[in-house]
Amino acid sequence: MQRGSFTVKTSRNMELVDITTLLVKVLNESKASSGICFLFNPHTTAGLTINEGADPDVRSDIIAGLKEIVPLNYPFKHMEGNSPAHIMATLTGSSLTIALDEGRLQLGTWQKIFFCEYDGPRTRKVHWHFLEPL
Amino acid sequence: MQRGSFTVKTSRNMELVDITTLLVKVLNESKASSGICFLFNPHTTAGLTINEGADPDVRSDIIAGLKEIVPLNYPFKHMEGNSPAHIMATLTGSSLTIALDEGRLQLGTWQKIFFCEYDGPRTRKVHWHFLEPL
Amino acid sequence: MQRGSFTVKTSRNMELVDITTLLVKVLNESKASSGICFLFNPHTTAGLTINEGADPDVRSDIIAGLKEIVPLNYPFKHMEGNSPAHIMATLTGSSLTIALDEGRLQLGTWQKIFFCEYDGPRTRKVHWHFLEPL
Repeated sequence: MQRGSFTVKTSRNMELVDITTLLVKVLNESKASSGICFLFNPHTTAGLTINEGADPDVRSDIIAGLKEIVPLNYPFKHMEGNSPAHIMATLTGSSLTIALDEGRLQLGTWQKIFFCEYDGPRTRKVHWHFLEPL
Repeated sequence: MQRGSFTVKTSRNMELVDITTLLVKVLNESKASSGICFLFNPHTTAGLTINEGADPDVRSDIIAGLKEIVPLNYPFKHMEGNSPAHIMATLTGSSLTIALDEGRLQLGTWQKIFFCEYDGPRTRKVHWHFLEPL
Repeated sequence: MQRGSFTVKTSRNMELVDITTLLVKVLNESKASSGICFLFNPHTTAGLTINEGADPDVRSDIIAGLKEIVPLNYPFKHMEGNSPAHIMATLTGSSLTIALDEGRLQLGTWQKIFFCEYDGPRTRKVHWHFLEPL
């Protein structure tokens, strides 16, 4: 099993950052070939998702939709004021599992991998593990 | 590691399709016995979930609930008009991990595996990988 | 591959129960060292999530948020009356993947693992599988 981490710098309070190219780069540098890649987000106000990468409007619509879905002005108790970001983290999920085939991620035609920033801008980390079966 | 894909034909704009029997069939045909099964949905307006399979009302209630939760008439920017489906895809998730024990999926009593169609009807694919540890 | 199950007794209709210490205990008793841990919730009105464990207000805010997000008084068809709990289960997800490094879970500073009860109180189970690569 190979493993590592990479950094994602976010530039807004909420945004989806395409990390697909970065992930392919670190996997290829590690000579990962065919197997299963696990991505893990170690933050509690962020997430990981797979969605459309072709039209940048999709990722901004996802952010707009989450802001409509999660009550932003509810009287939450957590004093830091970022409870909506924690709720979005739970709705999105903290890990992804993607197959790698001869160094290529097995994504669908329109799919890209996104780091979801819900309480930025911040410098974030993503951990990866790569399992190469016999 | 064994792998494959199967096709799911959906018949409505939004629906949950029980793929449990189909998955067991393809795993058994591949002689997968005990290990971990990874399911991956390569589409950006669909998802995969595990929920109750006994009462068909549960799956239609999940669809009804998602239509209430995600704003369908928000002025989204993505010109294709299916941004609610993309948002549902991110809320549901694109992969599942399920244990297999001597050819049987380790699901709870009421659990079935569902392909979630959010922008159909379409012909969809599901990829599976099976990891059989030593 | 090692595997097992543990019991989670919930005490409210809806709550997030921190299962991190319990999970570490069962993994260490199984002499699991470095690898990937898969957690699976076999129930259809519950889920598993990773979020902040330091301030207990975060977990109660997540419950409060889910009650705002999912329509509780919608005319759902499922006669048991717990369709909101089924919808929350699909929004949260039924499995988690976490790395273990020399017996320690690779969580972020503020992260803890929670069992999400959406239709309790009940006695619930969590299944785990641990994959230790060569």
